Amino acid sequence: MTAYEPFTEQTLRQRLAGVPAVTDRLGRDTAAWAVREVGDGNLNLVFAVTSPQGALIVKQALPWLRVVGTGWPLPLNRSFFEYSALTRHAARDPGRVPQVFHFDEAQALVVMRYLSPHVILRKSVVAGVQHPQLARDMGLFLARSLFRGSPLALTGQQARAEMALFAGNWELADITENLVFSDPYVEAKLNRHTPGLEQWVDRLRADRDMKVAAQAMKQAFTTKAETLLHGDLHSGSIMVTAQDTQVIDPEFAIYGPMGFDVGMLLANFLLGYFAQSGHESGPGARDGMRGWLLGTVTETWEVFAAEFAHLWRTERTGLLHERRLFEERGDTLGAEQALAWVLRGVWTDAMGFAGVEMHRRILGLAHVEDLEAVADPARRVVAERRALACGRQLAVLRETLQTPAQVCDLARRIEMENLA
Amino acid sequence: MTAYEPFTEQTLRQRLAGVPAVTDRLGRDTAAWAVREVGDGNLNLVFAVTSPQGALIVKQALPWLRVVGTGWPLPLNRSFFEYSALTRHAARDPGRVPQVFHFDEAQALVVMRYLSPHVILRKSVVAGVQHPQLARDMGLFLARSLFRGSPLALTGQQARAEMALFAGNWELADITENLVFSDPYVEAKLNRHTPGLEQWVDRLRADRDMKVAAQAMKQAFTTKAETLLHGDLHSGSIMVTAQDTQVIDPEFAIYGPMGFDVGMLLANFLLGYFAQSGHESGPGARDGMRGWLLGTVTETWEVFAAEFAHLWRTERTGLLHERRLFEERGDTLGAEQALAWVLRGVWTDAMGFAGVEMHRRILGLAHVEDLEAVADPARRVVAERRALACGRQLAVLRETLQTPAQVCDLARRIEMENLA
Repeated sequence: MTAYEPFTEQTLRQRLAGVPAVTDRLGRDTAAWAVREVGDGNLNLVFAVTSPQGALIVKQALPWLRVVGTGWPLPLNRSFFEYSALTRHAARDPGRVPQVFHFDEAQALVVMRYLSPHVILRKSVVAGVQHPQLARDMGLFLARSLFRGSPLALTGQQARAEMALFAGNWELADITENLVFSDPYVEAKLNRHTPGLEQWVDRLRADRDMKVAAQAMKQAFTTKAETLLHGDLHSGSIMVTAQDTQVIDPEFAIYGPMGFDVGMLLANFLLGYFAQSGHESGPGARDGMRGWLLGTVTETWEVFAAEFAHLWRTERTGLLHERRLFEERGDTLGAEQALAWVLRGVWTDAMGFAGVEMHRRILGLAHVEDLEAVADPARRVVAERRALACGRQLAVLRETLQTPAQVCDLARRIEMENLA
Repeated sequence: MTAYEPFTEQTLRQRLAGVPAVTDRLGRDTAAWAVREVGDGNLNLVFAVTSPQGALIVKQALPWLRVVGTGWPLPLNRSFFEYSALTRHAARDPGRVPQVFHFDEAQALVVMRYLSPHVILRKSVVAGVQHPQLARDMGLFLARSLFRGSPLALTGQQARAEMALFAGNWELADITENLVFSDPYVEAKLNRHTPGLEQWVDRLRADRDMKVAAQAMKQAFTTKAETLLHGDLHSGSIMVTAQDTQVIDPEFAIYGPMGFDVGMLLANFLLGYFAQSGHESGPGARDGMRGWLLGTVTETWEVFAAEFAHLWRTERTGLLHERRLFEERGDTLGAEQALAWVLRGVWTDAMGFAGVEMHRRILGLAHVEDLEAVADPARRVVAERRALACGRQLAVLRETLQTPAQVCDLARRIEMENLA
């Protein structure tokens, strides 16, 4: 084992030459390999390594936050947690995450499948391209990864061991805790927002119910260790083709509330929805895309809930809500009642997390291309203030809103009537 | 370090002779020491070691559950978790737990203060002896131990490290998860109940809302890692004199919901309340004791809530509900609103846990002397069915009941009207 060093296109080639999992796929003639650094994310080096025989992606963690610079150190062991989450996700929802071929803990390096011709979902949302399979794939992924990582499926021993293992990833959770839940609601140094949005930003930061809601959701994120979360499940962590969906980059993996992954994903669909007015060539030109995005909100939840219920009825062999108390005593309705209680909790949390995610992408450090790419500042401000208003309603009314239909109706009314 | 062996009165003397923390207190003349095994609990050897100079208690974990026998193995490392909890409790509420003088991890042995003339609180409750300082001492202990062990006071790094550490105590949590939350609601092998109680037991086990409530509370116990719990805070884990209160035996310590310790304690006061009719010499003879027990329910919660609020206002320097979002922006009322939200959650959970605790002490493996010591089987059945009825209302109506006054009113009505 050699000491960690960030690879270059040159040194990486030498390193991988000795890894059978790589040479098996690319061949032993390393001179025929092409190595290209293609990372555009915030945290890592990403290399595409191709040869006449095949292609691989190599992701290496950097010891600092790339987008900010060397002044913000980040732990290399997040690569271990990403690898650990990828292998669990592969087992829990086969085919939905890139296959891992090699993990080098010392170099914080994961070698995995080269996804092609996949594009980042967010690019499709900005471009106005629909992906009809997306909601179904993501609803299933959410249900399977969240259910199967929880003590609904695991024993107490297993669940507590997993929880303790992933608690080691506290430094990445700490980023979420600060950047998602707290910084957006104060004038934090790293925050930025579109000029012209000031009065809406000020109003939100003075909104007591919203702040209390955001801090309640932060408490839930930190203290409800329900299952293994992806931890960063936005439209930049999903790659798509016309037929396929792949979930990537689970380096924020930690035990937390099921509603976190669900809510963050729904929020990103809603951000995409409100961004459409900034991208359309004329009024109504993106109506189809808007309809698809709201349909995706609804269908994702519905597929999630249906698959979760299916797993509840067929794979509930863990510590919680044991069958011996319900089905095995002839009380199937009792099990259904408990399921409804659990799903209701996930939904309520998801609404809270969705609201906060919509805010932090407009007020905080890490923005989204959906809105950043709107060329006209005036249209961007309008789109952003609608998204802020929607997020506020979702978070504060998280106990009141009952269905995705209500959420879509809220979004449509905000879009149509310029409500805030 | 020698291999673990359960000590006898003879071998313990030899072992302790070489421990300065012991000889400093008892003197070096080991022949003048008296060593007596005094354990009456379920899990451990407990030795009283006295000399003309002083006295100590030595608690050694056994590798099996003493009350069931060698067929139920238990991990020795619970001694480490007990030691770890005792030192944290001592720091967080000084003077409320016995001082630890020596810890021997290999021998699973803790040497601590000999409490004298303290008696187990449960004995006082059975005997009809009041302890006017109890509610205040326990309310303060609950607030200080639960607040200061949580991310309200700790950083994210600290809280997640503590959570992961105590997750190692999963085997004792597993006992709670089975014996408290699940076994009582089925015909489990280790269950027992008073003859004559059958129809009430059957009714409870067929009560769908109660079962769903119990399993919701189990989910909360397992997945809400809010703070370091004592984990077994019943009247047998508290020792009292006329002036003093000491909290002992935190070997079930684990991260869990604040409401667990609170609810279990309140449940034991209520069990004591319903047991009084079994101990009184004539109708009304224990009215004073009954009044004191209900007063203790109310005062414990009120002192807890007041001290928690005090700590919230003065020591909230951790990860959650940061002052920079509230007080430091001039929004003190926002902080008070968040406090009310947190306390409401603790109360609701406490009601749920209290109901389950009242049930398992009558239907499960581990009963309480309050009811076991009732000589007349008919009076015991009446007391137990009242307690079952009360527990059911607390658990199922945990979101509805708002105040300790409502709980006391419920208990009094059940006691007076033979409701079930």
